[in-house]
Amino acid sequence: MNSNVEGVVNCAAYSEGCRIATIPVEAISDHLLEPNRFVWIGLHDPSGSILKQIQEEFQLHELAIEDALRAHQRPKLETYGETLFIVVRTVQMNYESRELDFGETHFFVGKNFIVSIRHGYSRAYSEVRARCESTPQLLRKGPGFALYAVMDSIVDGYFPVIDELGQELEVLEERIFSEKPSREMTKQMYDLKRQLVEVKRAVSPLIDVCTRLMRFDLEVIPEDTRPYFRDVYDHVIRINEMVDSTREILATALEANFSLVSISQNEIQKRFAGWAAILAVPTMIAGIYGMNFKFMPELDWQYGYPVILSIIVIACGLIYSGFKRAGWL
Amino acid sequence: MNSNVEGVVNCAAYSEGCRIATIPVEAISDHLLEPNRFVWIGLHDPSGSILKQIQEEFQLHELAIEDALRAHQRPKLETYGETLFIVVRTVQMNYESRELDFGETHFFVGKNFIVSIRHGYSRAYSEVRARCESTPQLLRKGPGFALYAVMDSIVDGYFPVIDELGQELEVLEERIFSEKPSREMTKQMYDLKRQLVEVKRAVSPLIDVCTRLMRFDLEVIPEDTRPYFRDVYDHVIRINEMVDSTREILATALEANFSLVSISQNEIQKRFAGWAAILAVPTMIAGIYGMNFKFMPELDWQYGYPVILSIIVIACGLIYSGFKRAGWL
Amino acid sequence: MNSNVEGVVNCAAYSEGCRIATIPVEAISDHLLEPNRFVWIGLHDPSGSILKQIQEEFQLHELAIEDALRAHQRPKLETYGETLFIVVRTVQMNYESRELDFGETHFFVGKNFIVSIRHGYSRAYSEVRARCESTPQLLRKGPGFALYAVMDSIVDGYFPVIDELGQELEVLEERIFSEKPSREMTKQMYDLKRQLVEVKRAVSPLIDVCTRLMRFDLEVIPEDTRPYFRDVYDHVIRINEMVDSTREILATALEANFSLVSISQNEIQKRFAGWAAILAVPTMIAGIYGMNFKFMPELDWQYGYPVILSIIVIACGLIYSGFKRAGWL
Amino acid sequence: MNSNVEGVVNCAAYSEGCRIATIPVEAISDHLLEPNRFVWIGLHDPSGSILKQIQEEFQLHELAIEDALRAHQRPKLETYGETLFIVVRTVQMNYESRELDFGETHFFVGKNFIVSIRHGYSRAYSEVRARCESTPQLLRKGPGFALYAVMDSIVDGYFPVIDELGQELEVLEERIFSEKPSREMTKQMYDLKRQLVEVKRAVSPLIDVCTRLMRFDLEVIPEDTRPYFRDVYDHVIRINEMVDSTREILATALEANFSLVSISQNEIQKRFAGWAAILAVPTMIAGIYGMNFKFMPELDWQYGYPVILSIIVIACGLIYSGFKRAGWL
Amino acid sequence: MNSNVEGVVNCAAYSEGCRIATIPVEAISDHLLEPNRFVWIGLHDPSGSILKQIQEEFQLHELAIEDALRAHQRPKLETYGETLFIVVRTVQMNYESRELDFGETHFFVGKNFIVSIRHGYSRAYSEVRARCESTPQLLRKGPGFALYAVMDSIVDGYFPVIDELGQELEVLEERIFSEKPSREMTKQMYDLKRQLVEVKRAVSPLIDVCTRLMRFDLEVIPEDTRPYFRDVYDHVIRINEMVDSTREILATALEANFSLVSISQNEIQKRFAGWAAILAVPTMIAGIYGMNFKFMPELDWQYGYPVILSIIVIACGLIYSGFKRAGWL
Repeated sequence: MNSNVEGVVNCAAYSEGCRIATIPVEAISDHLLEPNRFVWIGLHDPSGSILKQIQEEFQLHELAIEDALRAHQRPKLETYGETLFIVVRTVQMNYESRELDFGETHFFVGKNFIVSIRHGYSRAYSEVRARCESTPQLLRKGPGFALYAVMDSIVDGYFPVIDELGQELEVLEERIFSEKPSREMTKQMYDLKRQLVEVKRAVSPLIDVCTRLMRFDLEVIPEDTRPYFRDVYDHVIRINEMVDSTREILATALEANFSLVSISQNEIQKRFAGWAAILAVPTMIAGIYGMNFKFMPELDWQYGYPVILSIIVIACGLIYSGFKRAGWL
Repeated sequence: MNSNVEGVVNCAAYSEGCRIATIPVEAISDHLLEPNRFVWIGLHDPSGSILKQIQEEFQLHELAIEDALRAHQRPKLETYGETLFIVVRTVQMNYESRELDFGETHFFVGKNFIVSIRHGYSRAYSEVRARCESTPQLLRKGPGFALYAVMDSIVDGYFPVIDELGQELEVLEERIFSEKPSREMTKQMYDLKRQLVEVKRAVSPLIDVCTRLMRFDLEVIPEDTRPYFRDVYDHVIRINEMVDSTREILATALEANFSLVSISQNEIQKRFAGWAAILAVPTMIAGIYGMNFKFMPELDWQYGYPVILSIIVIACGLIYSGFKRAGWL
Repeated sequence: MNSNVEGVVNCAAYSEGCRIATIPVEAISDHLLEPNRFVWIGLHDPSGSILKQIQEEFQLHELAIEDALRAHQRPKLETYGETLFIVVRTVQMNYESRELDFGETHFFVGKNFIVSIRHGYSRAYSEVRARCESTPQLLRKGPGFALYAVMDSIVDGYFPVIDELGQELEVLEERIFSEKPSREMTKQMYDLKRQLVEVKRAVSPLIDVCTRLMRFDLEVIPEDTRPYFRDVYDHVIRINEMVDSTREILATALEANFSLVSISQNEIQKRFAGWAAILAVPTMIAGIYGMNFKFMPELDWQYGYPVILSIIVIACGLIYSGFKRAGWL
Repeated sequence: MNSNVEGVVNCAAYSEGCRIATIPVEAISDHLLEPNRFVWIGLHDPSGSILKQIQEEFQLHELAIEDALRAHQRPKLETYGETLFIVVRTVQMNYESRELDFGETHFFVGKNFIVSIRHGYSRAYSEVRARCESTPQLLRKGPGFALYAVMDSIVDGYFPVIDELGQELEVLEERIFSEKPSREMTKQMYDLKRQLVEVKRAVSPLIDVCTRLMRFDLEVIPEDTRPYFRDVYDHVIRINEMVDSTREILATALEANFSLVSISQNEIQKRFAGWAAILAVPTMIAGIYGMNFKFMPELDWQYGYPVILSIIVIACGLIYSGFKRAGWL
Repeated sequence: MNSNVEGVVNCAAYSEGCRIATIPVEAISDHLLEPNRFVWIGLHDPSGSILKQIQEEFQLHELAIEDALRAHQRPKLETYGETLFIVVRTVQMNYESRELDFGETHFFVGKNFIVSIRHGYSRAYSEVRARCESTPQLLRKGPGFALYAVMDSIVDGYFPVIDELGQELEVLEERIFSEKPSREMTKQMYDLKRQLVEVKRAVSPLIDVCTRLMRFDLEVIPEDTRPYFRDVYDHVIRINEMVDSTREILATALEANFSLVSISQNEIQKRFAGWAAILAVPTMIAGIYGMNFKFMPELDWQYGYPVILSIIVIACGLIYSGFKRAGWL
């Protein structure tokens, strides 16, 4: 069975934390009847027909299945009877385009099953599943633990992105205070801001999702699994705070940059004024001795020309040193 | 009966989710007495007299009817005894004037009736009604489901508008970083901001409305209809967040634009200063050799003129390349 | 009795919603003893002595009476035993000075009485009282309804003011994008902001006042009067939101204006630079041919002068069209 | 006993609202044993030893005494068993330095005692005490009423300060729109902002303190004293709102000022550009007729000079009136 | 045993508030069995193996131990059964690099033990331990008191840092209003802002931690220890408020600085314009008398040259004094 073609990546039944069989979709409902057994199925961009089948096997609510078909949901947790429907957004830094690629993973979690549905950019969860299978003493806690393992891996995926954005800010910061203000720097700050807003939008609703997973009386999350979700919650809060402080510092960087543009304007004006004065004085003096008056005694002096030249040079020198001292040049 | 003239668009009685008859307004109260039956009436800019009649047929509260006559209410949900009065604002992008056209729809929802009253710009709900009638198994849930269907269609109408505004922002963004700052670009950013504020004002009170519809113990919304309102709630939250992030990015765009105006000012000043220097130097040198001193040996040299000309050209060349290297030209 | 001199504008007893007598202040306590009767008294800038008398007749709390003497209270609702003390601020647009005139009205509301005390700018409530008296079926609900009628009329007084401010903003907006930035425009934006802050301060505490009037278990507001206060609450919320969005748009207008000032600066600089270049080039060329070198062949050419003149004109023409194309002129 | 030397300003026992004796510190514990009696002691910058004695007499908690020794607490209310520990900040405008002087008053309030400890700038409370003693019918309510009297006097001390700051803002506002922008004006706005932040920090925690004094079930504040604290609460809220709106208007004033600086920059540039053009045109024309071409027919015309002079004057006149019309001069 | 090598700094058992023995890690579990005894162990950058041993001795939750291994946690309080896990961030001003060095301390607190784990920059807590041991009457309250003592010392460590930042702001403020705006000043403001954001991030989650320590029903914090945590809470709130007001004033300082940059720009422009005019006028006049017209009567006058020179000097003088009066020079 090339299950991947239909969007099914992996479908297995677990008992006492151990994988007992890879099962076809049609066999799911049979396994669900067995006691102490749960089914974990992973889908990727599933077709409508496979989702329909999934819905029937697990008896999921129609509205939730409609949501699961469409990507671009916001992160949320909804309860349909005893089944949880959870939407989480995944993120990856695309190092080529310097853009963030967002994906989405939806979960259906019931007492004895967990369905994960990946949309768009997102690593497969086979590694997470393997890690879970290697610790049956934890996985025996049930689908709640599997949910934790995948969510934890998704949330941990935000840290390198945030670190990357933080480093971008540091690079920008370095450039702001050492280079001349430029359009490109402004563009980079703008892009960074946009990415922070996007990450914030993906992360902040998770606070609420985690709060409900760790506090509320959701039956599918057993008592002893809740501390794990507190761990996820903690990470989400930290990412959120990192985004917030990066945003705040970026805002100050924007202001600082702006201030530096103005200061640089002042400097340009000062230097321009200084050099304008240095060039204007000889022009003025030369203009005066270029007048055609009949009786201008200086013009007839033998050393008139070198004297005036010297005066010009001295005047320019004085002006230059004056401006230099005032810090204009 | 040309009901539309009086403002009545469609008035029908339903039983078990199936339309059983189109009924005149006068017959409504009779139908309300039948068990397992509900009446769905749609009005458009109704006159006071027809509203008066509606009030009597459904025994609605006077204050609510007064509200229903006036447009320009803010979105809200009010309970009068067991009847809900709901105000929702509709939106449409007017692609000609690039303006947003807002309309209003008021609802009266009781145990066995729903009245929808459209004011101003707003598509008719005949399509929604047709869709409901095609799924009697859902419509049998009663007027609460009809309310959901219309509200869902109204809220979905916000998405294309938000997408449009988001695209406008992207176009603006593109222009900000590629074109020269202009008055017209500032005007566009301002208009975009104004539209975002308007959409926000229309959408944000809906959060509260939906929260009450899906959580509170409102009798006219049956238990099994609430998940549907959670869906509407989810959309409202998403629209709200999209507006908020668009606003935040727009604010940064405004700042970035402002920064670019200043950077462009710097560039103008630099180029001006550079060219001023290049023009001032020959003027100064020429001025000096325009002086009328009797004894200026250079003037008598045979190659004085070409030498000075060359000096001028070289000086200008040096200045030019100096400014070029400094990035001022 | 010229009651107005002492500050008493109107004092009457009502039974079953009908005015039964205009009574002197001294007779109030007698009327209060009668069943099914309430007293409605209106004061305007009352003296301390008349307030003292009122206090005795109605047995009001000393602290509340102290408050009632002083204007410049913030809007609030306080309970003293079973008596409500309410402060509301009234507003009027002074079309001559373009300033807002704020007044204050205080209310004491008990089971069988209502006292209204106007301070400063404020229309008389005789019209409201007349309207109430014309609908005895409503006024029979008691002093709570009278309170509603006056508060409703006060709150409705804010709408024309907000509309006026909104129109001012629109006029400003029009000017910002069509006229040159000016001091006077900045002043107008500042004044508008100040007025919005003032209106906000007068209106926003009313949200809390209305919430308590419509929700809490205040005995003097009978059950069937609460929907009316919900109506007032709704208006207050709307005014509040209108002020908030006007403020937000004004803030963007300030930024846009600022951006336009800078853009206009850029334009001035560009045009200045352009014309400076056009004037500097002939000066430079003329300077060169003003040099006194013995051997300058061009000077002796017969057509040297017209050729140079043509060169100057052509150079200026080229520079002009170059700047024109670059959008600097 | 020169009690003031040790920091004791006034120590008296009261019974039924009447002062019965000025007592030494050592006798306090004896008086506390008497029924229907309370002790009111006022300290000013007390030494550690006298505080130690106070602690023993009233049996106060060690942590609270430590707090009472140190100034620079933030306003707060803490309960130690049945004893309240309250910190309030006092303020005075220093009209010489135009600075705000903040002081602190700490209170210990028990069922039958009140201790007030003043630190730093603060008027003595002898006047408040005298006023209380003159109304024994109120003071008989106990230490809670004494606490109200002192807190009320402290809070009332904020109004003149806020009024002063509000007037400063009005003066600034006047100057911003009538004078040239200056460093000193910016400094004043900055200082005003700083003072507003300081007042806010001193006042805003009082909201919480008053809320607890008027609502919570604190045994030492008798039922009939709570309306008095509501009065204090009301004043605190008003001060808080006044600070907030002053801050908001100040923020707009800062922006307006900034806008005016830019507008003034534009005007300078325009006038400079205008005069530069008026001076550059004659220079250019004169330069042309200063060229040394052999064949320049105009030079030989008899009226060449006056004609050129007239042309120069006319050109300058045209330029001048052109700029005048464009509003640049 | 060189316990420090393995990361164990100090490990002792206490009974009735008195240190009874320094014990090896292996002996901990034996001591925990004794009644009325608690163990206090301090670790510094412990290895994984020692933490493993600690986990076994105290039977700690695996997730908490994982957290304790990694630094860069955010401050938090978590409960694992009856054990508290607390993370607090420590701060020190590095006076050389003018940077803030943050460290972290994790605590495990149980009924009869407290484990403190220091990571990164942080003073040792030996001094705090010594102080506790010198007051056995307090230390007998148990591990809760030891936790208070260390947390109090950590939180007190923030005050000098905040004071330092406050003084930096004052220095900056002084410079802003007395010196010319410079890049370096902008850099300093930016750095100060960044440090404030970092302190805020370290302190603000402590509010929540302290609130839970002083209010909630945590068994390991005995009733009589809670007032001590209220003290810590109070300090945290104060630090938080100090950071907030410093931030707000810094924001205004940034704006003021910006305003001053613009004002300084205006001044440069004015002075430049003034001197340009003073230099341009002689150039223009000299240009006119440098024209080569045959018939220019002034040129033949004997005193033409000195007269023109005087006119030039007078004109410049008039212009100078005019600009001086207008405040441009």
